[in-house]
Amino acid sequence: MSNILNSDKVVALRWHDGPDYGRLEMVDQTRLPAVFEYLSYDSAAGVADGIRSMVVRGAPAIGVAAAYGVALEALRLQSQAGAVFDSALDTGFEVLAQSRPTAVNLFWALDRMQRCRSLHVQDSPSQLAAALLTEAKAIHEEDVRINQQMGEHGAVLLADGAHVLTHCNAGALATAGHGTALGVIRSAVAAGKRISVIADETRPFLQGARLTAWEMVQEGIPVTLITDNMAGHLMAQGEVDAVIVGTDRVAANGDVANKIGTYMVAVLAARHGIPFYVACPLSTIDLSVASGDQIPIEERASSEVTGFRETQWAAAGVQVRNPSFDVTPAELVSAIITEKGVVHSPDEDKLRALFD
Amino acid sequence: MSNILNSDKVVALRWHDGPDYGRLEMVDQTRLPAVFEYLSYDSAAGVADGIRSMVVRGAPAIGVAAAYGVALEALRLQSQAGAVFDSALDTGFEVLAQSRPTAVNLFWALDRMQRCRSLHVQDSPSQLAAALLTEAKAIHEEDVRINQQMGEHGAVLLADGAHVLTHCNAGALATAGHGTALGVIRSAVAAGKRISVIADETRPFLQGARLTAWEMVQEGIPVTLITDNMAGHLMAQGEVDAVIVGTDRVAANGDVANKIGTYMVAVLAARHGIPFYVACPLSTIDLSVASGDQIPIEERASSEVTGFRETQWAAAGVQVRNPSFDVTPAELVSAIITEKGVVHSPDEDKLRALFD
Repeated sequence: MSNILNSDKVVALRWHDGPDYGRLEMVDQTRLPAVFEYLSYDSAAGVADGIRSMVVRGAPAIGVAAAYGVALEALRLQSQAGAVFDSALDTGFEVLAQSRPTAVNLFWALDRMQRCRSLHVQDSPSQLAAALLTEAKAIHEEDVRINQQMGEHGAVLLADGAHVLTHCNAGALATAGHGTALGVIRSAVAAGKRISVIADETRPFLQGARLTAWEMVQEGIPVTLITDNMAGHLMAQGEVDAVIVGTDRVAANGDVANKIGTYMVAVLAARHGIPFYVACPLSTIDLSVASGDQIPIEERASSEVTGFRETQWAAAGVQVRNPSFDVTPAELVSAIITEKGVVHSPDEDKLRALFD
Repeated sequence: MSNILNSDKVVALRWHDGPDYGRLEMVDQTRLPAVFEYLSYDSAAGVADGIRSMVVRGAPAIGVAAAYGVALEALRLQSQAGAVFDSALDTGFEVLAQSRPTAVNLFWALDRMQRCRSLHVQDSPSQLAAALLTEAKAIHEEDVRINQQMGEHGAVLLADGAHVLTHCNAGALATAGHGTALGVIRSAVAAGKRISVIADETRPFLQGARLTAWEMVQEGIPVTLITDNMAGHLMAQGEVDAVIVGTDRVAANGDVANKIGTYMVAVLAARHGIPFYVACPLSTIDLSVASGDQIPIEERASSEVTGFRETQWAAAGVQVRNPSFDVTPAELVSAIITEKGVVHSPDEDKLRALFD
């Protein structure tokens, strides 16, 4: 367990039991790969800010971060009187819930932390804080294990020699480790298959160019970077054998919300008869949402689109749209890969059956 | 005529009759909109370098630039003896022909300059140089007129209130003036229609963010900038009524080569029942090429994809693909708008008929 939570490998998040009550460290993914730095967090508001500003991103990683955010808040407040503690902890939950709207793992993790809290309603603040930290560590540890299970289930779908296109970063950095989409690729490589990755750069935040490319280069898995608008051309040239992506939320009918641009890739894959796979833990499947059009789509700041960081290139005075996610209808999804196995041609019955 | 060739408006190219033999000035489109500067050219090699480095870009503008490049070379060499002059002028043609491979207007303009040359084979170098300059000015002037004719033919296709998506820059800056795709939008606006433009940013060179947005802002035409991977989402939300783009070469069967990413937009437009229009002069239609798969697709430097200018963000060690164009099959093209009229559902018979 300490091996998972304090891995020697590069991980998006790591917990440190400290001299006071401990701290969460997260790699600053806004600055990778140029700057590799862990930032330290000791409160719910701090973690919420880290989620909002995308220091940490990727649905599973956001869930783990939010769980630690709750635990940190309880630990920070544990010397307060019961009523003050309760009210402040409520605020902590609320601040975290408002950090980003689309990835359901955030709300899944907060729900799970609330259930843990309700089981310890008779305990002292410090006992509850200890229980919440244990729960956060369990969520963290489970996520790594789940990613490895997903990887094994998904690896069989990728042929030896396959050129696999991915969009955004659904790698170790988007999770507690191993990754969802990149976890499947890692597992296929570990099984002896020669896989090469085509990474969409994924404007505006460039997760593909900065994070996916970096993860693959680090492990010696061949990776080719393209701009998002090149995927169709490569498919038309027969240079893509499969697509695999992660997701921020799957609706009950199998519609998939994921990073903006995923829908375009899925439409093109269907046109070219290329399988389109989605890898996600069950915690990303939201049966309470009937279809994708009910998933809230975050709109982010215009400065992300008019340039990148401090480099701004667009004409002054232009209006901007910046939806951060889009919805791929279930009809375009060849299979969803979960820790419980592969769901081909997903629909509501098949997805509900996963939870039995 | 002087009004066209030395317009007060911002134009991509302008000719100056100088104290010696004159010069071509071209806006440096690699630096727009941050820096607005005309660069001066006095030789074929200089103009070829300006085309290669994308100081000037856009198929019609490249054609005009190449014509002036030939004229400049002849003027520069006119005091040389006949044989030396002929050989050096051959080299000038060759250097220009090798500057970029995809836009056929380059070769069309060079062919036309060669035909002019062959009509003056008995003349002195200075007489030929004068004739070549006259021909280049004619090509320049014709392009403006042709764009205005295209605009009038195409404007009727756009409804009042339409939200029109465009990819790359097929505007005044891509031509001698007015523009192909943006020329149609300008003509529709001039006819009293309220048109709003959605501009794909168009990685890696960002012609949409830098040039299309800039042209539209300058004229007060509402324009919204998106990253290339957002077009599908906006179409799915019902926010796009029509697509209009330019092209670098149309094959005899109606296949359209244009800036990388055009194919993806066309596939999505077809899925959503949105008309997909291509605006181009007849000089962009290449009947010698049967279909799009025979059009050479330029691959450019990897540094364009790993960042933008000196700002480099991608992980070190990543491989890169950088095809600059893709091919949209004719089946996805609703109509081609030319100076001779609109060709709906283009095919070889209809395109050949344009040249009768």
